[in-house]
Amino acid sequence: MPLNFVGSHILSVDQFDRESIERIFAVADQMIPYALRQRVTRVLEGAILGNMFFEPSTRTRVSFGCAWNLLGGEVRETTGLKASALAKGESFYDTARVLSGYSDLIVMRHEKMGSVAEFAEASRVPVINGGDGANEHPSQALLDLYTIGRELTDQGKTIDGMRIALVGDLRYGRAVHSLCKLLGIYKDITLSLISPEALRLPESYIYSLRMAGHQVIESTDLGQGLQSADIVYVTRTQEERFESPEEALRYKGLFRLNQAVYTEYCEPNTVIMHPLPRDTRAEANELDNDLNDNPNLAIFRQTDNGVLIRMALFALILDVADQIEQTSRTVNWYTAKRF
Amino acid sequence: MPLNFVGSHILSVDQFDRESIERIFAVADQMIPYALRQRVTRVLEGAILGNMFFEPSTRTRVSFGCAWNLLGGEVRETTGLKASALAKGESFYDTARVLSGYSDLIVMRHEKMGSVAEFAEASRVPVINGGDGANEHPSQALLDLYTIGRELTDQGKTIDGMRIALVGDLRYGRAVHSLCKLLGIYKDITLSLISPEALRLPESYIYSLRMAGHQVIESTDLGQGLQSADIVYVTRTQEERFESPEEALRYKGLFRLNQAVYTEYCEPNTVIMHPLPRDTRAEANELDNDLNDNPNLAIFRQTDNGVLIRMALFALILDVADQIEQTSRTVNWYTAKRF
Amino acid sequence: MPLNFVGSHILSVDQFDRESIERIFAVADQMIPYALRQRVTRVLEGAILGNMFFEPSTRTRVSFGCAWNLLGGEVRETTGLKASALAKGESFYDTARVLSGYSDLIVMRHEKMGSVAEFAEASRVPVINGGDGANEHPSQALLDLYTIGRELTDQGKTIDGMRIALVGDLRYGRAVHSLCKLLGIYKDITLSLISPEALRLPESYIYSLRMAGHQVIESTDLGQGLQSADIVYVTRTQEERFESPEEALRYKGLFRLNQAVYTEYCEPNTVIMHPLPRDTRAEANELDNDLNDNPNLAIFRQTDNGVLIRMALFALILDVADQIEQTSRTVNWYTAKRF
Repeated sequence: MPLNFVGSHILSVDQFDRESIERIFAVADQMIPYALRQRVTRVLEGAILGNMFFEPSTRTRVSFGCAWNLLGGEVRETTGLKASALAKGESFYDTARVLSGYSDLIVMRHEKMGSVAEFAEASRVPVINGGDGANEHPSQALLDLYTIGRELTDQGKTIDGMRIALVGDLRYGRAVHSLCKLLGIYKDITLSLISPEALRLPESYIYSLRMAGHQVIESTDLGQGLQSADIVYVTRTQEERFESPEEALRYKGLFRLNQAVYTEYCEPNTVIMHPLPRDTRAEANELDNDLNDNPNLAIFRQTDNGVLIRMALFALILDVADQIEQTSRTVNWYTAKRF
Repeated sequence: MPLNFVGSHILSVDQFDRESIERIFAVADQMIPYALRQRVTRVLEGAILGNMFFEPSTRTRVSFGCAWNLLGGEVRETTGLKASALAKGESFYDTARVLSGYSDLIVMRHEKMGSVAEFAEASRVPVINGGDGANEHPSQALLDLYTIGRELTDQGKTIDGMRIALVGDLRYGRAVHSLCKLLGIYKDITLSLISPEALRLPESYIYSLRMAGHQVIESTDLGQGLQSADIVYVTRTQEERFESPEEALRYKGLFRLNQAVYTEYCEPNTVIMHPLPRDTRAEANELDNDLNDNPNLAIFRQTDNGVLIRMALFALILDVADQIEQTSRTVNWYTAKRF
Repeated sequence: MPLNFVGSHILSVDQFDRESIERIFAVADQMIPYALRQRVTRVLEGAILGNMFFEPSTRTRVSFGCAWNLLGGEVRETTGLKASALAKGESFYDTARVLSGYSDLIVMRHEKMGSVAEFAEASRVPVINGGDGANEHPSQALLDLYTIGRELTDQGKTIDGMRIALVGDLRYGRAVHSLCKLLGIYKDITLSLISPEALRLPESYIYSLRMAGHQVIESTDLGQGLQSADIVYVTRTQEERFESPEEALRYKGLFRLNQAVYTEYCEPNTVIMHPLPRDTRAEANELDNDLNDNPNLAIFRQTDNGVLIRMALFALILDVADQIEQTSRTVNWYTAKRF
């Protein structure tokens, strides 16, 4: 049964079937003129987002806040755990009961797995999981899938039947795990998994993908794995999940995609994605700056799409998707052309 | 003489007489539909709150910001002292002169006693004390008293004539001290003070309460002290005010209110309050989670009431209480039922 | 050629000629009723400022945010570097590409010289330099010059032909350097430079000032240097630019302006300025609190003017200066008289 978004918590990609995904993507499409600053809407004027990042983050925090502002609402936020009552022995239950009195919807990030679900249970307003440690970050998975869909559509292709290569730390990469789960609701996908032996995608994901009828090929060779991919999704080594920085260092920089590799092994239109941030330091550099002018580098379209997806989730949960245009007008200030 | 709120600083509960308290509570009542997200008002659209928390805080900071947003205004804020000019040798005078050029009203918290009054003297806009160390936190005292009033009214009782038990660290608890001051303007109250000998309520408060005609009974026994209370107000040990964490630890967990104690010693409708956060760690746990489903647990109604009280203070100081409804409309988005 | 503001980055005072300066100041004048809270404008309602302070700051960050709010827009912000992707090896290029997807204009501060220009090159929206280390902080220079202009106008004088004394750490003071550059576009100024030998204004600035036809006199004696000045601009020792705090300490407190010195050496109407914060600790105290009631102390008018200048920059870059009044109305809440 498709998810009834109104008033729901968004905690895991497991909540979505194909129909609910398509509903999110349709609303995200509707948000394009607002995110492009062609139009302004005030549909959430007077509504308050509680943007509660108990684990600090710039990009995701600002993206959620921006999405809310673009709908006309106000943002109250917190960054970091140290000064919070949670650090003085307060339970997630109490924190949730209190903070949910201050806002219409809460986005929460916390390093502890399962923390956001525990919080949501006690919250009196809808909660979106903004990342709970190694567990889930559903809006990232949605924006990745939405980007894949839009990029393929531009090439006359579809997610059904695509060939995608996943490169790097497939063991700890939360974004990759959630994406693999979502791919289970599509058809006939070929996945090429490229990673060091020690950082393979966990068996359970491979099993599920195969059960969904997809073809999964594993490889430890970048060039070979990349061949005939429509999409290549590169990840950084998830340093913070390893036991020591030294251990992580052994895997940094093993697979590096640059223009030379791209030219030799990719298709002319292979789309390049990455959950960001990419580590441009010499010892890592998994996605080289010499690709910055390659029109198939979709990494910044990905982050732009994040705003659309988050606007769509807000609009669906608060049941205002149908009211966006009524309260809208054209933008009256200068907007950059390259936007 | 009752306080003329317009343009005034709110620094201490000593500023209030019964008439001004009743004026605040009447305006707070008027704010209920806005805090419940039944209606939206834009009465402060274009006004800026300077939410200056030089001592970090999540709950109080977000509560003030939320109250301002609910009136339609914008919030600029700061958290922590380290990066501020105060840490580079700037005086409170200079900080106040500068920051008051940026906003229409300032809420300030700073760990130093008296700092907010010093700041307010130089400020060109009204200042609300958001907590100055062990000294004052007037909006907390107001929300406590407002909660007591509403809870008692629901039971057909009044603050005049009530019986209240105060439990725990009565020596250092700022919230308890301010509440005791405010109770001085009511009549015929019976106070049961329950604390370890070393953490008794300071004599000066007891003296003032008795001078106001109230009955004060001290006890070191929880069960005995709780008997026949209309309200029981539990506090946590104010760890940060003790000379060492070890010393504070001696007093943690001495008095624990849980459902069993409640059933044995309280009245069927005794209202349970706490200034929050409650410390749910095993060694403290002054207010047990097994009370969470007890309908008389008013601790989250307390924090919700904090938003109403802060909205009321803002509206009175900026003289817009009479304009709220003119700029209001019904909410157009989903609002949670349990809210 | 005068700067075409629309869609431009503001990175350095070198971008301005006299005509563009006068355009900024004319728009700043137009902002006075809004900053004074006599009127409200909503011209940027729906626009988002990315207020990105990777080096913490309270005053400048809040001033930019306030200026944006006064035009009706929303602010998303970040404070500090530690939790940012920049600290995980992300390039300025990537950070700029990502963050510029979230806002209509970005103000950026970062301790690294040249960082904001590098960031601006990759940004898809206009960027204002909010301070890049010892390099530039153009809005500070503009507000200083604007203040000088307004103060002199009040006395029937002009920037052309004025006599200004610069006091203190002229070697490392970023504000002084930028101000000296801007003075190059005016005529017939007499500059009295008062500093310890080791903290003299760098030769290149002196050379440029002389090339512009100005008279430059250097001195190590405060009283002598102050004589017949229209403006005295005092600075604090830029501790953070010295090799050690001990070295900085040798220069602290060498020149102290107080009421006695003012009475003995200044003109009756000499205007006193300072970029703030002033260090009021005994060992520094370059500008004494006994001047606080001196009507010629312009230091808080300076910071107030900062809001006007920042509003003007926003309005010019986003091309809404001509629309301010259309969306405006009178303020409906209490506004402080001394404001």
